[in-house]
Amino acid sequence: MTIKTNYQVHFYDTDTMGVVHHSNYIRWFEIGRVEYLRNINVDLNEMMADGILFPITKVEAQFHSPAHFDDILEIETTATALTKAKMEFEYKVFRRGEDKVLVTGFTQNVFTNKETGKITRLPDKFYELMK
Amino acid sequence: MTIKTNYQVHFYDTDTMGVVHHSNYIRWFEIGRVEYLRNINVDLNEMMADGILFPITKVEAQFHSPAHFDDILEIETTATALTKAKMEFEYKVFRRGEDKVLVTGFTQNVFTNKETGKITRLPDKFYELMK
Amino acid sequence: MTIKTNYQVHFYDTDTMGVVHHSNYIRWFEIGRVEYLRNINVDLNEMMADGILFPITKVEAQFHSPAHFDDILEIETTATALTKAKMEFEYKVFRRGEDKVLVTGFTQNVFTNKETGKITRLPDKFYELMK
Amino acid sequence: MTIKTNYQVHFYDTDTMGVVHHSNYIRWFEIGRVEYLRNINVDLNEMMADGILFPITKVEAQFHSPAHFDDILEIETTATALTKAKMEFEYKVFRRGEDKVLVTGFTQNVFTNKETGKITRLPDKFYELMK
Repeated sequence: MTIKTNYQVHFYDTDTMGVVHHSNYIRWFEIGRVEYLRNINVDLNEMMADGILFPITKVEAQFHSPAHFDDILEIETTATALTKAKMEFEYKVFRRGEDKVLVTGFTQNVFTNKETGKITRLPDKFYELMK
Repeated sequence: MTIKTNYQVHFYDTDTMGVVHHSNYIRWFEIGRVEYLRNINVDLNEMMADGILFPITKVEAQFHSPAHFDDILEIETTATALTKAKMEFEYKVFRRGEDKVLVTGFTQNVFTNKETGKITRLPDKFYELMK
Repeated sequence: MTIKTNYQVHFYDTDTMGVVHHSNYIRWFEIGRVEYLRNINVDLNEMMADGILFPITKVEAQFHSPAHFDDILEIETTATALTKAKMEFEYKVFRRGEDKVLVTGFTQNVFTNKETGKITRLPDKFYELMK
Repeated sequence: MTIKTNYQVHFYDTDTMGVVHHSNYIRWFEIGRVEYLRNINVDLNEMMADGILFPITKVEAQFHSPAHFDDILEIETTATALTKAKMEFEYKVFRRGEDKVLVTGFTQNVFTNKETGKITRLPDKFYELMK
């Protein structure tokens, strides 16, 4: 399954070179990831309330072509692993209506116990939604 | 008392108009404010651990002249009110070595109970440091 | 005229106190402002291409109540002055479906010549759209 | 050569999980990279004035352990390739005074012609400094 989300570039996303600052795509991957999980009814507020955090452990991104102020971007998010130990997603960012991929990316989250900070396994109530 | 802190402008602070995005000065006021409190031995981690939060309730800023990538800025922070009910600070931002003020600002924090979210009065242990 | 825009709060908008960091509302005022201008067909890319910039000269905000991760916010933007010399807007931020205003704000932009950095007057082609 | 830079974590760098938001490390890699280049007398403002941009083409990061508000971080930046075609850097982020690495990372920049957006080769005046 691939989830598409839109994002219109703001002035505060751009930098003095006239393009979107690369760090913002890392943030927008989060928009895609959260929307993906919302689509399969995984409620991250509930997960936090249950004492489970989901820190990012890896990020990779390749920047092929720049985006600019006011561009409408499409973020395509695909889950490549959703297990009791980790969530992995891949991302492709396009300018709306164009075929050329601007940015590709990958992230990995693990699950940790909020109190101890230690790695934990995802409870079934959430895992059942992810399978 | 006035506390001076330095900040060198990064690419990610600028926007496509070639200048620092105005929202960042609001963030840098926080740098000045935290440094001011550190100077009078007010430990914000201790305050949070004691269940007291200090949300911002007002911000004002006037932007007189722009700053650019790599500029070294000086933030001058002055407390104008430090009571059991609120903290108020004024800010002036300069480019290092210049007299012209680039940005002026004002902020107000109040104190709230972390559990209830309600307004609270600052305990003496912190207030004694602020007097 | 009042323009409404929506914004769903991301993790990267929140801070360790569990609420939206106040500086982000200043950024979201920009979302409202740009959308307002888009609605009256003022094209900011065209304005920049014509050598006219529109720096923010004043910001004011009052923070009444916090927002949290995943909240859907509504930003109401109203123009209070659109002249050849300046643009002034007022903002109200709500949580969707609630009457209580979370944040109120005000901004002022002026127009400057991109080359000289000096204050300029807005050309008629843009001003006609704003009247 | 390895360059060390310090960064003290602000509230606006943290998120509702109580830790630094991972996207900020990507920004702090930039602090290390710019400081590295400053140390070898490469002036990025001069490079931009000469019509050469240096967009990021790849970012990788591994997040091993979280940082928190007020932590003083040390960013160690090492150049692994500085050629006429690209700059590659590796990063390690520590909490000051501790041995455990919190975050590791890698970035690649290429050089482009500001006007055409096309890949270009770095002029000798800059390359001589990098050798």
